[in-house]
Amino acid sequence: MMKMVKNAIGREVPLHVENFRTLTPFAGAVVHTPLIKKDKGNRNLPKLSKIVPTLQDAISQTGLQDGMTISFHHGFRNGDYVLNMVLDVIAAMGIKNLTIAPSSLTDAHIPLIKHIQSGVVTKIYTSGMRGKLGEQISQGMMDTPVLFHSHGGRARALETGDIKIDVAFLGVPSCDIYGNANGYTGPSACGSLGYAMCDAQTANKVVLITDYLAEYPNIPFSIHQNQVDCIVKVEAIGDPSKISTGAARFTRNPRDLLIAQNTARVIMNSGYFEDGFSFQTGSGGASIATTRFLRDEMLRRKITASFVLGGISQAVVQLHEEGLVHRMLDVQSFDAEAIRSIGTNRYHQEIDASYYANPLNKGCAVNKLNVVVLSALEVDLDFNVNVLTGSDGFIRGASGGHSDTAIGSDLSVIICPLVRGRIASIVERVQTVITPGESVDVIVTDYGVAINPRRQELVSSLKKCGLPLYSIEALQQKAQNIVGVPQPLEFTDKIVGLVEYRDGTIIDVIHQIKA
Amino acid sequence: MMKMVKNAIGREVPLHVENFRTLTPFAGAVVHTPLIKKDKGNRNLPKLSKIVPTLQDAISQTGLQDGMTISFHHGFRNGDYVLNMVLDVIAAMGIKNLTIAPSSLTDAHIPLIKHIQSGVVTKIYTSGMRGKLGEQISQGMMDTPVLFHSHGGRARALETGDIKIDVAFLGVPSCDIYGNANGYTGPSACGSLGYAMCDAQTANKVVLITDYLAEYPNIPFSIHQNQVDCIVKVEAIGDPSKISTGAARFTRNPRDLLIAQNTARVIMNSGYFEDGFSFQTGSGGASIATTRFLRDEMLRRKITASFVLGGISQAVVQLHEEGLVHRMLDVQSFDAEAIRSIGTNRYHQEIDASYYANPLNKGCAVNKLNVVVLSALEVDLDFNVNVLTGSDGFIRGASGGHSDTAIGSDLSVIICPLVRGRIASIVERVQTVITPGESVDVIVTDYGVAINPRRQELVSSLKKCGLPLYSIEALQQKAQNIVGVPQPLEFTDKIVGLVEYRDGTIIDVIHQIKA
Repeated sequence: MMKMVKNAIGREVPLHVENFRTLTPFAGAVVHTPLIKKDKGNRNLPKLSKIVPTLQDAISQTGLQDGMTISFHHGFRNGDYVLNMVLDVIAAMGIKNLTIAPSSLTDAHIPLIKHIQSGVVTKIYTSGMRGKLGEQISQGMMDTPVLFHSHGGRARALETGDIKIDVAFLGVPSCDIYGNANGYTGPSACGSLGYAMCDAQTANKVVLITDYLAEYPNIPFSIHQNQVDCIVKVEAIGDPSKISTGAARFTRNPRDLLIAQNTARVIMNSGYFEDGFSFQTGSGGASIATTRFLRDEMLRRKITASFVLGGISQAVVQLHEEGLVHRMLDVQSFDAEAIRSIGTNRYHQEIDASYYANPLNKGCAVNKLNVVVLSALEVDLDFNVNVLTGSDGFIRGASGGHSDTAIGSDLSVIICPLVRGRIASIVERVQTVITPGESVDVIVTDYGVAINPRRQELVSSLKKCGLPLYSIEALQQKAQNIVGVPQPLEFTDKIVGLVEYRDGTIIDVIHQIKA
Repeated sequence: MMKMVKNAIGREVPLHVENFRTLTPFAGAVVHTPLIKKDKGNRNLPKLSKIVPTLQDAISQTGLQDGMTISFHHGFRNGDYVLNMVLDVIAAMGIKNLTIAPSSLTDAHIPLIKHIQSGVVTKIYTSGMRGKLGEQISQGMMDTPVLFHSHGGRARALETGDIKIDVAFLGVPSCDIYGNANGYTGPSACGSLGYAMCDAQTANKVVLITDYLAEYPNIPFSIHQNQVDCIVKVEAIGDPSKISTGAARFTRNPRDLLIAQNTARVIMNSGYFEDGFSFQTGSGGASIATTRFLRDEMLRRKITASFVLGGISQAVVQLHEEGLVHRMLDVQSFDAEAIRSIGTNRYHQEIDASYYANPLNKGCAVNKLNVVVLSALEVDLDFNVNVLTGSDGFIRGASGGHSDTAIGSDLSVIICPLVRGRIASIVERVQTVITPGESVDVIVTDYGVAINPRRQELVSSLKKCGLPLYSIEALQQKAQNIVGVPQPLEFTDKIVGLVEYRDGTIIDVIHQIKA
């Protein structure tokens, strides 16, 4: 007979049963559940608060130590206060040698420079960076290169463990005392928390930082209470005027309008512009104008789109509310109208970055995309696209969802002016490859359109509609004729940036600018 | 200088950089992303379908083998076709020795008996079982005991890996061809997919089975496309008349009304019935009548509830739509009205079983509960509760969220008639302990109310309001006076069931009934 022992309530139970792991006898209702309230009769409401008084308390509670990896999200864009606030406290606590893995870095993060200089931050994973920070990194201020990934690539790295986050510090526009958080409500509303959701799902410890406490349960929630360790309430998590802006005005710039018109014609005549199609456009002037032109043609042809993906702008919300777009899948809300919409429209769905673009999960949304319109700093004769480094060789951009959507879509249209000032956008060889030419289908400039020769079937349909088609070589020559051949940039052997393709391979490197 | 190699687009990249894992050079845009479409120009829409023709194809594709663990959910209750359908195909394919881990088993699952007899199924994890299946298990038909867990305990086991699901077979009322699924739409709508969501998050392979394909993207989605491997469309996944019933009529049973009145008075006078309180009630007659009585008193006192948790019924939806309940957190929708509501009310929030009740995550919702009303088959002098085995010793019930909510709440009220026919409900010692007395606060019967002596502070407040208070011993004696002392049941040494407490320890065992 089986050996039995008496458990805490006097029942005879076995320790070993064939086909089971070793069994543990019941020891009491709350012995093994550390997080439950122990005092059942305690009448103090609200109960079970995760709020700690200060950021320093939160950091101590997470056990953060030298050499660990911490993360942030960039949903507050140029208005973010969280990253600087957290690093200042960490620095004051004397913690060093951290890897930071923000989903991206913006103009708000220039103070990061001092934390790199002092050795608090020694390694960075990010989608991009700008301004003084990009310049200093380009000039070699770090010993370890910065790794640049796409939004989908970051989600992949978090899920595969290529990036292991010890503590995620996530600013949230609203949360309750137990950690249910969303981005729609509160003074610092930013809309979708699509990037932060991945961190909340995968980080070992999660600290929420908010300036707006909501009633429990704060639903709908993007970050779930069961993902959250502690919460800090601060004065402000961001500058609302820089977190969300009003919608971009419809552009009156003739060059943008010309690019938008050409782009819309490419899409309309591509064969993908049919009832139930899907698309993604950006928030720039030409991109929004493209959306407007598509709208007019959708009305004329009496077709509707099944979904719009990615960053959502007012232009897209308007199409949805007019019934022209059935669903919006929103990883990032571009403006105040998009933020309002995601908080009220049932079919405006928040998605996380893995759902959006992780190439190694069981199916991300970019794979279902028909058409994407993407901008570029440079495009080269192989159709490779650079959105990261400027013509001066400095880092001043972000990988974003560029390479994810380019390969996922049926039709990727890259838009850029042929020249910017005295700088050509169509070049022999881009400085830094973010998106490989293999995944790029059409280049639209104000001077003409080039189709990737890999997509011959597009040529015949687009020729018919009278678009000004050129070879990429012809466009490059045209640009060169206008601005001449620039002095080549000079770099050292030192690598300051690694550019990771979405699948985790290294597609390019960034060298240190020669002083 | 660092050793560099040329990658697939001719860029020089390093293989080794200090502080990084070994680097892999870019090899092409789709080389390492097996799930993406390879033919960018392919115009066949819809693209990237995960639909396979038959269940057998799906099973083959998952690589299911002898000895593996598969799972199901019980959202279709007595109307479920999925479990039987899948096991029939698996049996026909000759696969044996499987562990099944359904979230629960119902009257629909009697055909499981033949698959146990033939060795297709050799081990079971479940919340409960009923009817002929429970009888046969109780009589010793399996070599390995069935492990019974609570809903929170199952979520815990999935997350800790105590239960590792190789393949989850999840019936879903609607999904699109890429795997976005919800429970609100389609002919077999069941409402919340709270149990299935845990399987979709943790199983190695996920097969969706549906009878209703929706337009992509099917949002809101409970199961995400990035969790799903393949989809099978079948004639019907369940019997709608048994999946969801109309709301229970308001009971006219005087005994139920008496219990409900006493229960409502206990709650109203407990000190927890105040503005912003939260509660969970069941779907039985007395439970729903209790909800109604609470409603009337909420209106009278002009208070509202912050949230209702757990299984959601029409009675609760009505309170929400009247403005008396701010939020509903729904792990299981009890009736057609609840199904309608979860598909339309923004603050009717679907939650998964981990969010609901997993005791080892970072904070589950039962911890925030003020009041829960739970039924019982038996309660004993230690306030231990049995909801699993009948007075004949046979397994005929389910652990459910009973022990989870009892310990999580401030006030757990157990309701049962003092006697059922010739059977006492208040007994010296319950046959099987599901919920330990330590977590049980008040017993309400049609003959009187007993308060757990651990909760002395309740006694004084409840005495004042004239409730018929008795000791548990007095209630037990009263029951015994009515029905006498039953013949003791006889069991063998063989263990047919292990009862796991929510934290994973063994709280009790079920022995084989002596023939």
